[in-house]
Amino acid sequence: MLLGSVEAGGTKFVCAVGNEDFKVQESVTFPTTTPEETLRKTLAFFKKFADLKAIGVSSFGPIEIRKSSPKYGYITNTPKPGWKDTDFVNKLQASFPVPIAWTTDVNGSAYGEYIAYKKAGLQLSSLAYYTVGTGIGAGIVTDGKLVGSEGHPELGHVYLKRHSADLNFKGICPYHGDCLEGLASGPTFKARLGIAGQDVPLTDPTWNIIAYYVAQGVMQATLALRPSKIVIGGGVSSEAFLKKVRLHFKKLLNDYVAVGDLEQYIVTPKVPHNGSAIMGSLALALAEYQKSAQPKATNA
Amino acid sequence: MLLGSVEAGGTKFVCAVGNEDFKVQESVTFPTTTPEETLRKTLAFFKKFADLKAIGVSSFGPIEIRKSSPKYGYITNTPKPGWKDTDFVNKLQASFPVPIAWTTDVNGSAYGEYIAYKKAGLQLSSLAYYTVGTGIGAGIVTDGKLVGSEGHPELGHVYLKRHSADLNFKGICPYHGDCLEGLASGPTFKARLGIAGQDVPLTDPTWNIIAYYVAQGVMQATLALRPSKIVIGGGVSSEAFLKKVRLHFKKLLNDYVAVGDLEQYIVTPKVPHNGSAIMGSLALALAEYQKSAQPKATNA
Repeated sequence: MLLGSVEAGGTKFVCAVGNEDFKVQESVTFPTTTPEETLRKTLAFFKKFADLKAIGVSSFGPIEIRKSSPKYGYITNTPKPGWKDTDFVNKLQASFPVPIAWTTDVNGSAYGEYIAYKKAGLQLSSLAYYTVGTGIGAGIVTDGKLVGSEGHPELGHVYLKRHSADLNFKGICPYHGDCLEGLASGPTFKARLGIAGQDVPLTDPTWNIIAYYVAQGVMQATLALRPSKIVIGGGVSSEAFLKKVRLHFKKLLNDYVAVGDLEQYIVTPKVPHNGSAIMGSLALALAEYQKSAQPKATNA
Repeated sequence: MLLGSVEAGGTKFVCAVGNEDFKVQESVTFPTTTPEETLRKTLAFFKKFADLKAIGVSSFGPIEIRKSSPKYGYITNTPKPGWKDTDFVNKLQASFPVPIAWTTDVNGSAYGEYIAYKKAGLQLSSLAYYTVGTGIGAGIVTDGKLVGSEGHPELGHVYLKRHSADLNFKGICPYHGDCLEGLASGPTFKARLGIAGQDVPLTDPTWNIIAYYVAQGVMQATLALRPSKIVIGGGVSSEAFLKKVRLHFKKLLNDYVAVGDLEQYIVTPKVPHNGSAIMGSLALALAEYQKSAQPKATNA
């Protein structure tokens, strides 16, 4: 069986096709430019494959996921120039009359990580996936389902206790100023220091400040959902960074609730090479295909 | 059918019996003193009723809710003097060999509110219930189930952005200092002003500060879960207080995600006279009874 996957990120798109074991057979990566150009490249890639059964899309957001909404399948209120109110699913559907799964990039990653643990024999009750990169977001899987009734989580935009050495930084979120994304996303390095994050050594105190904020985000997800595991991916994340996050998390939570071994609780992604969202999109595509196939089977 | 309900609060216990329509037939209220005395009074009340089918307990926390734990049914890490590591369910079970549902007071209230809306013809996808009183906590119902994989939510203990007129207040949470509970629970009035909250007029700026913090808590729950409705109960809550909360919430969220009419989204409890947890406990008792009756029916 051939399934399609779109990881629609704010910086780049990764389109892939894979089988029902979520093994990728071919993929293509291109930068996220205008909606027109980027969607044209997406369609062109999938047109090469004759027998796609379903497509899973994990997109940067916010997006409309309520099927009852006339804007279902749109990227909605994004600060990304040119992408506000972009119809995505209908354009894809017009070229590919197959079941399409539609969720956020971080939900796709969360689902991919959940599936990866399941394939490895560990059935988690719930998992939260944070990306810390150009932006900050989180996806949550509980009992095998994505969390969010009236929309998807937007956990990058919560407010936080400020670090005592960072009180004067205004934050860079165009909507909230000093929310988590405004204080701890990758571009805040440049805003604070004039240097991009990848050029700032981990010994610089700014990394410690960023870890303090990310730890608060992780603590909020912990206290809201009591998940089995929290995965932190994205360009800013690394095992060395998570060491700092765990230290802050331990101090901030102060053992108020038990989360077990922190090295098993706050972790880097299990799927290698940033593949979580691709695996998740393929798995969601398969689930959507199976859902759409069910009524037919009953009628037969 | 006769069902039992215990609303085990940090200040007072309310024990009640009701029927399968959750109509209360008799109830008793007494102060929460020592565990021994308080549990003795609880048992004495229920012993008056010959044919209790099940009991639902909604307790102050934190509590252990994982049935796999040897501490299942305990109140665990509470700052309340004398109550740390108190066995509750086993003591109740020893006198009443009936199914016992065990959850937090706020989960009980959340479930009661969910049931009240359902009875009124409104099936909500999800609901979060905050109590703002002696402490702050939240319970969450999604798709008819209580949220929390490895434990129950503890949303009173998240950190927040400080109000600019409140930067010097250290907060009163013994675990976290200036978490939500440490900054916005009822006793913070006394700690800030030397006067109890009920004696502070709503025009005092302290109410505005408290509303600012509660609005951030509500915003976190919104961005984590995207619930259909957020109910705020507890001694500090009132319609006048919620007006202030809504104003802050609107400004803080800055329309980043849609929540619909705020007056329908952030609301006082639907169940009158602080009855949400009693209704929830009775409903959870009934659900526990039905669950325990199922295997018997299969064997018959």
